[in-house]
Amino acid sequence: MDQEQLRSLLEQVHNGAIDIDSAIQRMRHLPFEDLGFAKVDHHRALRHGMPEVIFAQGKTAEQVLAIAQALLKNSPNVLITRADRACAALVLENLPEAEHLPLSRVIRFWRDRTVRGKGKIAVVCAGTSDMPVAEEAQATAEVMGNDVVAIHDIGVAGIHRLMHNRERLVEARVCVVCAGMEGALPSVVGGLVSCPVIAVPTSVGYGASFHGLAALLGMLNSCASNVTVVNIDNGFGAGYVASLINRP
Amino acid sequence: MDQEQLRSLLEQVHNGAIDIDSAIQRMRHLPFEDLGFAKVDHHRALRHGMPEVIFAQGKTAEQVLAIAQALLKNSPNVLITRADRACAALVLENLPEAEHLPLSRVIRFWRDRTVRGKGKIAVVCAGTSDMPVAEEAQATAEVMGNDVVAIHDIGVAGIHRLMHNRERLVEARVCVVCAGMEGALPSVVGGLVSCPVIAVPTSVGYGASFHGLAALLGMLNSCASNVTVVNIDNGFGAGYVASLINRP
Amino acid sequence: MDQEQLRSLLEQVHNGAIDIDSAIQRMRHLPFEDLGFAKVDHHRALRHGMPEVIFAQGKTAEQVLAIAQALLKNSPNVLITRADRACAALVLENLPEAEHLPLSRVIRFWRDRTVRGKGKIAVVCAGTSDMPVAEEAQATAEVMGNDVVAIHDIGVAGIHRLMHNRERLVEARVCVVCAGMEGALPSVVGGLVSCPVIAVPTSVGYGASFHGLAALLGMLNSCASNVTVVNIDNGFGAGYVASLINRP
Amino acid sequence: MDQEQLRSLLEQVHNGAIDIDSAIQRMRHLPFEDLGFAKVDHHRALRHGMPEVIFAQGKTAEQVLAIAQALLKNSPNVLITRADRACAALVLENLPEAEHLPLSRVIRFWRDRTVRGKGKIAVVCAGTSDMPVAEEAQATAEVMGNDVVAIHDIGVAGIHRLMHNRERLVEARVCVVCAGMEGALPSVVGGLVSCPVIAVPTSVGYGASFHGLAALLGMLNSCASNVTVVNIDNGFGAGYVASLINRP
Amino acid sequence: MDQEQLRSLLEQVHNGAIDIDSAIQRMRHLPFEDLGFAKVDHHRALRHGMPEVIFAQGKTAEQVLAIAQALLKNSPNVLITRADRACAALVLENLPEAEHLPLSRVIRFWRDRTVRGKGKIAVVCAGTSDMPVAEEAQATAEVMGNDVVAIHDIGVAGIHRLMHNRERLVEARVCVVCAGMEGALPSVVGGLVSCPVIAVPTSVGYGASFHGLAALLGMLNSCASNVTVVNIDNGFGAGYVASLINRP
Amino acid sequence: MDQEQLRSLLEQVHNGAIDIDSAIQRMRHLPFEDLGFAKVDHHRALRHGMPEVIFAQGKTAEQVLAIAQALLKNSPNVLITRADRACAALVLENLPEAEHLPLSRVIRFWRDRTVRGKGKIAVVCAGTSDMPVAEEAQATAEVMGNDVVAIHDIGVAGIHRLMHNRERLVEARVCVVCAGMEGALPSVVGGLVSCPVIAVPTSVGYGASFHGLAALLGMLNSCASNVTVVNIDNGFGAGYVASLINRP
Amino acid sequence: MDQEQLRSLLEQVHNGAIDIDSAIQRMRHLPFEDLGFAKVDHHRALRHGMPEVIFAQGKTAEQVLAIAQALLKNSPNVLITRADRACAALVLENLPEAEHLPLSRVIRFWRDRTVRGKGKIAVVCAGTSDMPVAEEAQATAEVMGNDVVAIHDIGVAGIHRLMHNRERLVEARVCVVCAGMEGALPSVVGGLVSCPVIAVPTSVGYGASFHGLAALLGMLNSCASNVTVVNIDNGFGAGYVASLINRP
Amino acid sequence: MDQEQLRSLLEQVHNGAIDIDSAIQRMRHLPFEDLGFAKVDHHRALRHGMPEVIFAQGKTAEQVLAIAQALLKNSPNVLITRADRACAALVLENLPEAEHLPLSRVIRFWRDRTVRGKGKIAVVCAGTSDMPVAEEAQATAEVMGNDVVAIHDIGVAGIHRLMHNRERLVEARVCVVCAGMEGALPSVVGGLVSCPVIAVPTSVGYGASFHGLAALLGMLNSCASNVTVVNIDNGFGAGYVASLINRP
Repeated sequence: MDQEQLRSLLEQVHNGAIDIDSAIQRMRHLPFEDLGFAKVDHHRALRHGMPEVIFAQGKTAEQVLAIAQALLKNSPNVLITRADRACAALVLENLPEAEHLPLSRVIRFWRDRTVRGKGKIAVVCAGTSDMPVAEEAQATAEVMGNDVVAIHDIGVAGIHRLMHNRERLVEARVCVVCAGMEGALPSVVGGLVSCPVIAVPTSVGYGASFHGLAALLGMLNSCASNVTVVNIDNGFGAGYVASLINRP
Repeated sequence: MDQEQLRSLLEQVHNGAIDIDSAIQRMRHLPFEDLGFAKVDHHRALRHGMPEVIFAQGKTAEQVLAIAQALLKNSPNVLITRADRACAALVLENLPEAEHLPLSRVIRFWRDRTVRGKGKIAVVCAGTSDMPVAEEAQATAEVMGNDVVAIHDIGVAGIHRLMHNRERLVEARVCVVCAGMEGALPSVVGGLVSCPVIAVPTSVGYGASFHGLAALLGMLNSCASNVTVVNIDNGFGAGYVASLINRP
Repeated sequence: MDQEQLRSLLEQVHNGAIDIDSAIQRMRHLPFEDLGFAKVDHHRALRHGMPEVIFAQGKTAEQVLAIAQALLKNSPNVLITRADRACAALVLENLPEAEHLPLSRVIRFWRDRTVRGKGKIAVVCAGTSDMPVAEEAQATAEVMGNDVVAIHDIGVAGIHRLMHNRERLVEARVCVVCAGMEGALPSVVGGLVSCPVIAVPTSVGYGASFHGLAALLGMLNSCASNVTVVNIDNGFGAGYVASLINRP
Repeated sequence: MDQEQLRSLLEQVHNGAIDIDSAIQRMRHLPFEDLGFAKVDHHRALRHGMPEVIFAQGKTAEQVLAIAQALLKNSPNVLITRADRACAALVLENLPEAEHLPLSRVIRFWRDRTVRGKGKIAVVCAGTSDMPVAEEAQATAEVMGNDVVAIHDIGVAGIHRLMHNRERLVEARVCVVCAGMEGALPSVVGGLVSCPVIAVPTSVGYGASFHGLAALLGMLNSCASNVTVVNIDNGFGAGYVASLINRP
Repeated sequence: MDQEQLRSLLEQVHNGAIDIDSAIQRMRHLPFEDLGFAKVDHHRALRHGMPEVIFAQGKTAEQVLAIAQALLKNSPNVLITRADRACAALVLENLPEAEHLPLSRVIRFWRDRTVRGKGKIAVVCAGTSDMPVAEEAQATAEVMGNDVVAIHDIGVAGIHRLMHNRERLVEARVCVVCAGMEGALPSVVGGLVSCPVIAVPTSVGYGASFHGLAALLGMLNSCASNVTVVNIDNGFGAGYVASLINRP
Repeated sequence: MDQEQLRSLLEQVHNGAIDIDSAIQRMRHLPFEDLGFAKVDHHRALRHGMPEVIFAQGKTAEQVLAIAQALLKNSPNVLITRADRACAALVLENLPEAEHLPLSRVIRFWRDRTVRGKGKIAVVCAGTSDMPVAEEAQATAEVMGNDVVAIHDIGVAGIHRLMHNRERLVEARVCVVCAGMEGALPSVVGGLVSCPVIAVPTSVGYGASFHGLAALLGMLNSCASNVTVVNIDNGFGAGYVASLINRP
Repeated sequence: MDQEQLRSLLEQVHNGAIDIDSAIQRMRHLPFEDLGFAKVDHHRALRHGMPEVIFAQGKTAEQVLAIAQALLKNSPNVLITRADRACAALVLENLPEAEHLPLSRVIRFWRDRTVRGKGKIAVVCAGTSDMPVAEEAQATAEVMGNDVVAIHDIGVAGIHRLMHNRERLVEARVCVVCAGMEGALPSVVGGLVSCPVIAVPTSVGYGASFHGLAALLGMLNSCASNVTVVNIDNGFGAGYVASLINRP
Repeated sequence: MDQEQLRSLLEQVHNGAIDIDSAIQRMRHLPFEDLGFAKVDHHRALRHGMPEVIFAQGKTAEQVLAIAQALLKNSPNVLITRADRACAALVLENLPEAEHLPLSRVIRFWRDRTVRGKGKIAVVCAGTSDMPVAEEAQATAEVMGNDVVAIHDIGVAGIHRLMHNRERLVEARVCVVCAGMEGALPSVVGGLVSCPVIAVPTSVGYGASFHGLAALLGMLNSCASNVTVVNIDNGFGAGYVASLINRP
């Protein structure tokens, strides 16, 4: 409609109903994004294959349901993260297409299963306690159209188990590596592969892990040059960036 | 030569000079990487287009020179980071092909200028004080075969300057964003583009910036989902990962 | 009554019942604030248009009610902050004039609605999770006699939404900006407007937000010169100072 | 000139040289700030009475001089902060109008001395060691057109000295309070006055002051509701915001 | 009895039943504290007027009761700190002499009420939320035989209330000052009095108070030379040391 | 079976069914640990006398039970740490050989009670609140075949109690010392003994103990040269390393 | 002179030159401390036996000299702390009575050597590196009229050396204990003596001592109830408070 | 001689020159360590094979020389750590037996080269920058009579180099592992070997390594159970404890 405002203004310019100086003056007050800017966002959504994400934390179950219902009208795939049990129950009851992953507290609607990624994304985690974060990364990457290889429970103190999976790691086009405690796994994986590694510190640990701070610092100081880091427990962010990297 | 050991062992197996059980026994003690493992590294180097990097900090000028001379025999491109003036002087005197970037303390040998990257890498910095870090990222990405677009001195408090460069940002396939102080620029850039953003906190700032900690925390907590983070002042790491992402 | 003490002493001086040296001696022991000092406070209250605030946290519902009843005798407007549900229920039951804002846990008595502020106060928040803090700021500024413009859910990663509200921001005489996570919004707003910006870090965030520390540090290091900061989640303080600035 | 582009486009619309759809299409690619946006900045500068500030830290003396010379063509008043001795010497030699305040490392050109502020700004400091920061605040506020009252060396451990200056504090329309060590002075001043107090933690202190962190935390936790805080040692920022608040 | 061992050994030396070398040898293995060392502890207890304190936190109600019953046989006064409601109920039911202070979670047996202190101890707190800590300090000092003056709810932002109590502060021989938030009160009190001030940071505060850290740092950096500090919320320790200082 | 793969390959080499170059080629892709590597782990388990530990935290009671049942088939001794009450109830009900230590939340199966350690391990704790951690260390060391001397409730503020136990400390071959609060006990013990001391900071403390950080830093900075440190509350780790040191 | 103002006002009251209401009105504006308040400070100085201290850090040598010269006119004893070599040289050259203690960077004028303290003050330090801080404490306590017992180089890892000095410690009326690294000595001393212990963390240490933070936290968490703490390296503060405690 | 005092006292008891009660009384005041206690220290020294260590930091070259000369009279081996160039020059000039290791700033006198250790000590470091710390550990372990295997420059990002040295690691009886940056190497080594691993965080790193804090936290949170940690850069401590563990 704002384009209509502009069109109407230009028509007035064309037919002399308004002089050019006044037109310039009025243009200054047009919100610039109405000149087509919002379309960029729309295009981006189409290009990404995942129009919307709902962060359920801090929202009521009813709010999450309502937002999901609205989004599903235009978006084949919708991802809900950090949904508690009550929220999941309500959504599943009302939207039977929903898939619930209780470990990672993810709900997803994965109706368009086209694979858009160029290669595989490996999602690795150090211990079973890191699995909720890894699962969030995996669910995110999948719903964004990627083929995911999940490799679980591979700690640096049992390096031969890592070596055993070397080939699967080397084949991936991006690696997401989740680890708590000392957070050393991304460095070791980073040394084995030549693709980008996205490190996710988890809040798993005891005492001086300080809720993931030790792992976070470890990953930021990685001696492997192909490692970048996202926030503590941010499996979603890691899966999201991995998907972007994996676009052809 | 270790392959020779293996070959010789297998020949003994073949001609019966050693029985199979003894052969298995001896194989267990062969260092596994001698079974061709090291070749992976070599292949990786070839594939990356940048065989070696020298971190000059903590090394004498003479050591840096010697390492550079050795590497240049096999590697068309060599990158030296964190080289002080004395180091640069010695290297430049002895290796006239060297290019010295005093601001970022980088020395580079950029003999193979083939562009390997699929798209452009944008390297953005928030203020002039962040330029040394941005330049290190740019030098790294260039020597790894990328076309780099440098956009300098774009702070979040002057958002229209950022908007002015929107089109150049949107065209990039990866963005590296360097910022000190509050470290907000990667979030704003991340919201404008749909490609991965690598955020580099810089140690630029006063008082409660705590040598880059404020910027680091800001970037890790970015509300833009396409942002990942490297260590404070780690321009090299950002340029390196950006290059990996930009590979076709 | 202490003024009475002084008056009586001076009368004794006047009629010679006490000599001057003894009078001086006794005066030294008069508490100085009894010489009219307390009146300053009273005047201040009148001038501010908001005599008293009750911080409900750490007080029983009964204590809050009793204090509120006492204050309402002299004060047209009373603000209660951080009131839990039980407290709100008791106050609302006994004092039907009370208005309860459950999101921000504010209860207010807003009987004198005179507008005392010279211009408008914009209260901006970055995400829906920051709304409780923003609402506390708004409720405070309103009850102190200000016209408040509320602008919600404007993140730095969606900069065009901010731009869309530019005009409303530019018109304000003071801006209060609430943001968690990376806390970058005050810097961006600070660059758009020329009035003072009061930044309120919120404890909203995950992992390395460290309960608002990341946002706090971000705001303290703002590259916009017109930004000052209050404590984490301190919406009341921001609304209070904004009101003082907005006085004619 | 970009306005010229727009004007020329509209003229083409007017005389039919371009049809309206094509005009809209081209308008989308015009940088929006060219539609008069930059003028806002210009107006702001005029309204503020201080067009430009140069942060000398991290710039060479020659760079600072060149920028100053350029700015002085359009701006009556220019402020240079954090200028070291070499920088000051060069500027003073070339620009004799410059005034150098060595304690605060400020250089200023104060050619337009119109008083624009409505009331007085009090700049208070706790100890003699805090004076450099206080002087930076004072120099900033003065060059922005304010009448400044400087009150030095008033610590909370000698409360009667503060009381002695009570009247001067109460008369101010804004207070800037600089303190290191425990940073308690802003709270005490905040309780005495009813105007906004801008607290500046300084890096003055020993041991567990942690370069101003103790003072910073103290000020953020002030029990006085009229206190806001800027970064450690940021006298400039405090003087700047105080000037904005003091505008009529 | 161990003295008996020694006596018996010496008797053997005296009557030649053991030679001197063997006696020396055996003496090396006598636990040294059995040579009368333990008596020091006993004397100390008598001299202090408070033989034992029970820290109830981390003990069951039954354990606390049993220890109290044992101690009361020899000790006229017993202090129990950090006792929860269940613990208090059990102790009060079984030991009717017990006095329970629910605010500070103290239980005390105060049978010997002799005043041993030379002067008065002032216990000051900044806000009503600091009262539990202040009460613990007061209860401790009283049960150790001191005359305590309690001065509550005196914040630095209302300095005239402090001034009003100046005389009572000046008369004290030791001051205990409890404050949360910015923790500035000990500095102000320290400047008014010439006796030692024991500062107790409390965990009262919001956001960047970080559970008492802000107050703790503030107090350690006090500009008043007569201030020393105890742990956060350690009212007991402050009351204990104040009692020691107040001994004649 | 993978050994079988290798054997079959070598047989083919032997009988000429495959040429040597092809054999080498295929060997590169054999996972190296299949060449007998896993046996090392098995041997290690046998040598240690304790094949497996289950960290119960983050696992369901059912999961813990199932793992325990599986491990008990091959392992005489199994240790379960951090088991809550529900977990313990289920395990004890199903596996009557289990021994439950509720204080330390340890469950252990101690069927092979051979003493493997060369000397004694002293496990010392500073206060009764540190006993859960000490008990975890003791249970670990015992189940790994060591003779443990437990010395409880020996604080540095009652140094004569420590002296009283000097002889028992001096006799030990390794000391584990658990302490919270200021964490000073390992330094004092370290000065008395000439064997290695493993310090375990506990999260016991108040206020500025920061959940064991104070004790941790104290121990890392010990002035006794024979002290090394494990993570906060990590009694298991301390008992484990002590056992390794105590091997003959 | 302000007393003169008051006297003159009272005379006017007496002779009716001013009516009582006007007198009260004028009195409100008299600065209260002019009513004899400053005398308190004077009395305090006399009672303390040490009128003034000069913190030399941050002052020029000339400033320190000038202040010292002024103070010496009224004060028999003057203490200068943190004086560098240049400062000491200038003061010693001009004021031959000065005594310079280079280790602690103290200069003192100790002309009145009356012993005012009731008992002895023990100043203990853990290692030779802590001696500068201990010497500052000793110099302060001495110049304030105390008999000081210095006990050096007594670490907790050599507890028998501490025991050797037990009798000297027990005799003291106050102990000042300086320690870096783990800061455990005050706890051990606190357990041996029954008098107040003032703990001074020193910045001596390596790595994770974090410039005295480890020692500071250790001392705040002391398990000995008679320990209070001053700032890192604050030998002056410790000596000052010890003197106050030691007053009869 | 104190034994002489005791002997003389006992002789007096024996011959009746003193009665038993008086003897007991006098014995209480004998320093207990004179009863043979000091011998323990002497014995310990002999048993350790390394009587004394001199920490040169904070001492003058002359002091270090004098202490070394004194110690060399009784001790075959003396170790000086953290000696700067000036100190080394003076010691080498005067004591030609001295061996100087400039990288680690160690000086040692290694006259008794008896091997006392039971097995080998492996000293591993992650990068060339960690070599000074590793060398300090090696020098310490050697001078204490151990056979040391040095393995340098083995990072976790090049895991095959570590694997290459697996056999040498597995043969060691203790491992010392020095690493900066993310500090992951001890975890990986700990998983490969079954002996105790002493982890030494080094201050090597950039930005968010925070001078070794990242490595320290990483090591404390190691997922390998056989890892204990010493202070940042404390190569001496690691070598010392490794020697104690390696005693037969």
